[in-house]
Amino acid sequence: MISSPYLLFLGDAPDTLAAKVAQGIRDWRPDAAIGQLRMEGCKADMGLPDMTLREAVAAGAKTLVVGVANRGGVISPAWLSILEEALIAGLDLASGLHNLLRDEPVLVATANSYNRKLHDVRVPETRFPIANGKRRSGKRCLAVGTDCSVGKMYTALAMEKEMVARGMKASFRATGQTGILITGNGVPLDAVVADFMAGSIEWLTPDNDPDHWDLIEGQGSLFHASYSGVTLALVHGGQPDALILCHEPTRPHMRGLPDYKLPSLEALRDLALTMAGIVNPEVYVAGISVNTAAMSEEEAVDYLAGVEARMGLPAVDPFRHGAGRLVDGLR
Amino acid sequence: MISSPYLLFLGDAPDTLAAKVAQGIRDWRPDAAIGQLRMEGCKADMGLPDMTLREAVAAGAKTLVVGVANRGGVISPAWLSILEEALIAGLDLASGLHNLLRDEPVLVATANSYNRKLHDVRVPETRFPIANGKRRSGKRCLAVGTDCSVGKMYTALAMEKEMVARGMKASFRATGQTGILITGNGVPLDAVVADFMAGSIEWLTPDNDPDHWDLIEGQGSLFHASYSGVTLALVHGGQPDALILCHEPTRPHMRGLPDYKLPSLEALRDLALTMAGIVNPEVYVAGISVNTAAMSEEEAVDYLAGVEARMGLPAVDPFRHGAGRLVDGLR
Repeated sequence: MISSPYLLFLGDAPDTLAAKVAQGIRDWRPDAAIGQLRMEGCKADMGLPDMTLREAVAAGAKTLVVGVANRGGVISPAWLSILEEALIAGLDLASGLHNLLRDEPVLVATANSYNRKLHDVRVPETRFPIANGKRRSGKRCLAVGTDCSVGKMYTALAMEKEMVARGMKASFRATGQTGILITGNGVPLDAVVADFMAGSIEWLTPDNDPDHWDLIEGQGSLFHASYSGVTLALVHGGQPDALILCHEPTRPHMRGLPDYKLPSLEALRDLALTMAGIVNPEVYVAGISVNTAAMSEEEAVDYLAGVEARMGLPAVDPFRHGAGRLVDGLR
Repeated sequence: MISSPYLLFLGDAPDTLAAKVAQGIRDWRPDAAIGQLRMEGCKADMGLPDMTLREAVAAGAKTLVVGVANRGGVISPAWLSILEEALIAGLDLASGLHNLLRDEPVLVATANSYNRKLHDVRVPETRFPIANGKRRSGKRCLAVGTDCSVGKMYTALAMEKEMVARGMKASFRATGQTGILITGNGVPLDAVVADFMAGSIEWLTPDNDPDHWDLIEGQGSLFHASYSGVTLALVHGGQPDALILCHEPTRPHMRGLPDYKLPSLEALRDLALTMAGIVNPEVYVAGISVNTAAMSEEEAVDYLAGVEARMGLPAVDPFRHGAGRLVDGLR
C-alpha cells in the first residue's frame, strides 16, 4: 500500500501526454494529489499547486509519485537528485517506470538511511497463491476488450465513481501500473509469473459484502495473440458476474499486430461469455463501452445508437456521456 | 548438461499422478533412471529398484532428480535434509519445482562445499520477446486437454517417437519441467512472466522446413480456472496447424478443483478450435488421445469406439495402442 496524499512529480515532461500517470491520479483520486513538482522547462500542468519538497511535506504529503514517463528509458541524473532529496525531505517514492527505483544504488542507500519506502509498481510485491476457482461472495464486474488500450481502465474507474456517487459499495481493482499508482494498490498482472496469474486476481478480489462490487481493470484481449493468456487469467481469476465489452471502432488492426483485424463486438461477447461461464455460469454482459475519441459527437452518437440496436445492450462512451447507463445494466 | 543416470526422488507423493516427473523420465529415458528413493508414506512407485543414496552412488547414479511435483512447489523440511544428504553422498540435484534449490541456503552451501551442481530446470534461462503473432513456416501440432494431467506430454512424445520411426521430421517441444528433464531443453512456461508467455512459445517453435512438425507439449486446460491463461498463451504462441484433444474419462472433477466437472470433448473441440483459429484459421483436430489407465482393456476399447463414432475422429489411448492413428490424422 502506497501512503497518501501524494506530491506528483512531473519532471521535465515535454507535454501533458507524457504525464498521463499524474493525470490519472488527479482525475480519479483528486483528494490524494495535494501538489505538483515541476522541473525547469516542464510543459505539463495538472492545475495543482506547485510545491517544493519541503512545502509538500509541511502540507502532509507522504509519497512522491513519479507521474511522468521518462525519455530514453533511463532515470536522468537531474531526476535522481530530486528523488534523493525527496527521500531526505521525508517522502516515500512510487514509480511505474521500466527502470526500477530499487536498481539505483543512491536511492536504495538513502531510503535505507532515512527509513523510507521505494515502491516499484511494475514488480509484484506479494507471493500469490495458485487459483482455487472457489465462488466468492460479493459481486464483480470485469471490462473485456476487442483489443488492448481501448479504454478498459477508464471504464472501470468511471463506473466506480458513478457507483460511489449513488451510494453503492464499489472498489476499483487495479491490474496495471497506472491503475496501481492511482489507487495505491493492486496487482501488476503482466509481471506476475504464469502459474500465479489467476491466483493473483482471486487475491485481489476476495470475499466481500453481498452488495459490494469490484470493478476489475481489464488487460489485453482474448483475441490478442501477444497477451490473451493474461486476459484469460483475469477472466478466470476475477470470476465476473457482469462483463462490460470495450471497443475502439476506428482502429485498422489489433494494437502491435498489423496482420490481425479487430474482432466484432458479437465475437467478443460470445467468447467472453463462454470463458467467464466456466467459472460463473450466471455471467452476463451489462453494457458496451466505446472509445469514440476519434469520432465527432454526431458520428459517436450515431455509432452508439447502431451498436445499441444491434446488440440489445446499453452502449455509451463514458468519457462523453458518463458511465450511468453501464451501472444501470448491473443486476 | 544434467549428468545421468538418475536416482528418482519420489518424496512423500500422495499418488502416482503427483510423481509424473519421475514417470515421464522412466517411460521416455528408461536408461537414465536406475532407481527410486521413497520416503515413509510415499504412495507412488515407478517399479524401479528402491535404493538408498549410498546404494545409488555405488550403482553409478550421478544426479538425484526431484521426480515429484507438488501444488505451489514447496520444499518441505523433510525433503531438504534428504536433498542435503544426497549432495554429501556424491550426487548433483535437479528439480523443476517453483521453489528453487538455489534459494535454499543449506543446499547452496553444501553444493559449494562438495563441488556438486544444482539444476533448477524450471527457471527460464532466456530473455523472451513479446509475441508478434506472425505466421511461421513448418507445421505444429499441439495437445490440448479437458483437464490438467490427462496425458498431453505423453501424447506428444508418443507421436514424436512414431513420426521419427516413420522417417518424418519431428521434434518434441518441451514446455514443462518433466519434458525439459527428458529432452534437455525447452521453455518452463508456467514460470515465465505473464507478458512473455506467448512470445516464449513462438521462440520455442520457430520457422522450420515445410514438412517438419513440432509436437508441442500442452499445459493445463482452457477450462481449468487455475491455469487456463497459460494454456491460451500456448495456443496463441504455438499457432498450431493440428490439435490433439486429450481426456481422462473417469475423473470425478477437474484436478485440484472439487467444484468443477470436466468439460465434454465436444466443448473442448469447439473452444480450442475457436481459440486456435484466431492465429491460424486453417487449424483442425487430428485426433483424440484418451488416458484409459483406470479402465479395463474391454472398457477402454468400448469407450474409444464410442468416442470415435460420436466425434468422427480417430480416438486412441497411445499408451495401450500406440500413436500411429493420431499421426495418420495429420494433414
